Amino acid sequence: MSTITLADLSTPSLILDRSRLLANTARMRQRAAQLGVGLRPHMKTAKSATIAAIAHDGAKGPVTVSTLAEARYFAAAGFRDILYAVPVAPQKLDQAAAIMRETGCDLKLITDHPAVAAAIAEAGRRLGLAFRVLIKIDCGLGRAGIPADSELLLPLAAALSAPDSATGGAVLAGVLTHAGHSYHAKDIAEIRRIAEDERLAVVTAAGRLRAAGHACPIVSVGSTPTALHAAHYDGVTEMRPGNYMFFDLFQAGVGSCRMEDIAVGVLASVVAHHPGRGHLLIDAGGLALSKDTGANEHLPGTGYGRVRQPGAAQPLPGLAVHDVHQEHGLVGRQDGAAPDFAAHPPGSRLLVLPNHSCMTAAMYDRYFVVDPAQGGPDAVIAEWDRVNGW
Amino acid sequence: MSTITLADLSTPSLILDRSRLLANTARMRQRAAQLGVGLRPHMKTAKSATIAAIAHDGAKGPVTVSTLAEARYFAAAGFRDILYAVPVAPQKLDQAAAIMRETGCDLKLITDHPAVAAAIAEAGRRLGLAFRVLIKIDCGLGRAGIPADSELLLPLAAALSAPDSATGGAVLAGVLTHAGHSYHAKDIAEIRRIAEDERLAVVTAAGRLRAAGHACPIVSVGSTPTALHAAHYDGVTEMRPGNYMFFDLFQAGVGSCRMEDIAVGVLASVVAHHPGRGHLLIDAGGLALSKDTGANEHLPGTGYGRVRQPGAAQPLPGLAVHDVHQEHGLVGRQDGAAPDFAAHPPGSRLLVLPNHSCMTAAMYDRYFVVDPAQGGPDAVIAEWDRVNGW
Repeated sequence: MSTITLADLSTPSLILDRSRLLANTARMRQRAAQLGVGLRPHMKTAKSATIAAIAHDGAKGPVTVSTLAEARYFAAAGFRDILYAVPVAPQKLDQAAAIMRETGCDLKLITDHPAVAAAIAEAGRRLGLAFRVLIKIDCGLGRAGIPADSELLLPLAAALSAPDSATGGAVLAGVLTHAGHSYHAKDIAEIRRIAEDERLAVVTAAGRLRAAGHACPIVSVGSTPTALHAAHYDGVTEMRPGNYMFFDLFQAGVGSCRMEDIAVGVLASVVAHHPGRGHLLIDAGGLALSKDTGANEHLPGTGYGRVRQPGAAQPLPGLAVHDVHQEHGLVGRQDGAAPDFAAHPPGSRLLVLPNHSCMTAAMYDRYFVVDPAQGGPDAVIAEWDRVNGW
Repeated sequence: MSTITLADLSTPSLILDRSRLLANTARMRQRAAQLGVGLRPHMKTAKSATIAAIAHDGAKGPVTVSTLAEARYFAAAGFRDILYAVPVAPQKLDQAAAIMRETGCDLKLITDHPAVAAAIAEAGRRLGLAFRVLIKIDCGLGRAGIPADSELLLPLAAALSAPDSATGGAVLAGVLTHAGHSYHAKDIAEIRRIAEDERLAVVTAAGRLRAAGHACPIVSVGSTPTALHAAHYDGVTEMRPGNYMFFDLFQAGVGSCRMEDIAVGVLASVVAHHPGRGHLLIDAGGLALSKDTGANEHLPGTGYGRVRQPGAAQPLPGLAVHDVHQEHGLVGRQDGAAPDFAAHPPGSRLLVLPNHSCMTAAMYDRYFVVDPAQGGPDAVIAEWDRVNGW
C-alpha cells in the first residue's frame, strides 16, 4: 500500500509502537526464563493474535484469555493451549465445548465453587468431553478464589476428578492465582512481598492437593508487577502477565516500566482553545480514553491521561487530560497555568497515554502500528485487529 | 424465529426494555410540545436508527450525533437532518463532505474557534459545498464554547458567512449550548436555574448575531435534566436531550426519572460466592459496566451499579456492585452485611442498572430487546444494532 502516516488517520485512533512492544515482550520472555517458569501471557490487554505470537517470539504458545470471544478467536488463529481465566458460568459450558470441538484446542476453565465444579463435571459427562479445570486460589486480592488453606480445596478437587476422563467429565488441571493487589503496592519491596504471597498461595494449595493424591500439573501465577519483581518462583510452573506488552501510566506509577516503555496511545486532534478556562479541547473523551483514573493513585495529577507528541519518547511536561465528557477531552496544565496554545493549534495532534491500557484499548477494533525503527515515527506500517466483546 | 428468552443469552449482554423506552420517549415528545420547541434527540446514548425513529414516534426526524461514524450510520438509515455536536477537527471536513455527498443529508457542524471556522469556509469553497455551522456557546459547563457575550462571537459569524453559499463555503446555521452542569445540581430548583442560564446563553447570542445582521435560524439547547425541568424555552427553537431514552442511576439520582424508568441493564451471571469477603462474583466487570461511577455523587453506595432481578421493576434492596475488575464484578450489600447467597446460586442471573447508560451501552454492538407488555419480561422480541467507534 502507499504509505499512510499518522496525519492521514482520523481521530481518535489507537496507535501501537511496535519497537516498544518488541522490547517489552522480549523483556518478559527473559524474566520467565530467568525465573524458570513458562509464560502464558494474558491476552485480555492486547486481544490480538498477531501480538500473542509476538509475545511468544513467533510461536503460537500458551495464552490466557478473559472472554469466550477471545477463546474462540485465538483458537481460530491456531493457538492450541488456552486458559479462560474468569470463573466460568455454568451456562457457558456448551459454548466452551463447542470451541474445543470445532478447533481442537485445549481450553482450560477455572472455578472456585463446588456447585460449578459439579456442573462442569456433569456437562462433561453429558457432552462426552473432559473439561480441564484449575482451582482459583485467592492470594490476598480478595476478588475471586478460595484461600490456599480452605476446607473447600479438597472437595473441589474431588468434584473435578473424573473416575475415567476418557468418558468425559472434569479433570483437575492445577491451581492458579492473581496478585492484582500488587497494583496498589507502595514500592518495589512491597511488590516483592506480594509476589512471595502469590507464589506461596498456589504452591501451598498444590502441595495439599498432591498430598491428597491429586495430580496438579499447572501451578500458575501472574500479574505484571509481580512477574517483573518476584525474587523467585520456586514450585510455580507458569506465569500470566498481560499488561506488560503495552504498559500504561498505572504501571509506570507502580514501578513496572518507564514512561518511554508505554507502547499504546490514543491519537487525538485539538479542536478548540479555551484560554479563559485554561484548556485545550481534544476529540478524545470518556469513550476514547475510558474513565479509568487508576494511575492517579501513584501519579497524582494524571487525570485521564498524560499527552505527548506522537513521535516523542516522553510526555509533554505538565500537561494532562483534566476532564472528559463522552467525546471531549480537556487538556490543561497540572500546575493550573495556561497551556501553550500557540504550540497546539486546532488540527494539531496529540497522543494520549492511557491510565490503564486494558480499558482504553478495548474501545478500538484495531491498532494502527508504527515503528520508529522501521519507517520512522509517523509511518503506519500495519493494521492489526482485536477481538472485543463477549 | 423461535422464542429466545433471557435464559438463552450469554452474559454479559445488554438488555433494553421497550415498554420503558416507549414511555420515556413519549414523555420527552410531550415536553418538547409543551415547551414549544423542536426535538433533536442526541443519539450518542442509543446509537441506534431503530431507537431514533422511536424517539420521533416513527419519523426519521432531526437527530444529534457525537461522531462521524454515527453521522454516516444515521444518514445511511435515511435520517436527513443531522447535527454533529462535537467541535469539528479540521481534518474531518473531507469525511463530513463525503457523508453529505453520498447520502444527500444535511450534516451540520459546530465550532467555537476562528481558525476552525476559517478552515471550514475554506474547505467548503475547495469542495464546492456549503457547510452549515452552529457556533458553540458555553452556558456555565465550561467544557466547550464561548460565552454569549464573547468578543469572538461576531468574528466567528463573519468567518462562517459565505458571500454566496451557492459557490460553497460556510453558512451560519445558528447557536447551540449544552447545560451538562445540570447533572451536578443539588435539587430540581437548581436544575431550573441552570435551564434558564442555558436558555439565556443561546438567546442572548442569537440576539447579538441578529442585531449584527446575521440570520440565526437554529437556537439549540439540551440536556436531559434541563429538558425535563425547564420552566420555559422562550426564544429557543430545539432541544437535544439524549440520555432520557434510557435514563440510568445518575439520572435517577439527579431527579430526572424513577428507578423503574431505567430502560437498559447488563445481564450478568453469578459465577462464585465468597462468604468470607461478603460478595457474589458476577461475570460483568469494568468493560461490561464501564468504570463510570458518577451516580455515587447523588446516590452514595451505588458503586458500579445496582442490581435487580431481570423482570423486576425495582433494584434489589441494599445490593450494589462494589468493585470491578476487567471481567469480574463484586456484588455486595451496601450495609456491609452478607448478601443472601442462597437466593443467588451460581448460574443465576442479575440485571445491573448502569451508572451512566451512555458509557455502558457503548461496550455492546446490539440490544436484546424485551417488552413486558408484549411477550412477558423474559422473551427477547428483537435484536437492534448500534454504531460504536468513530
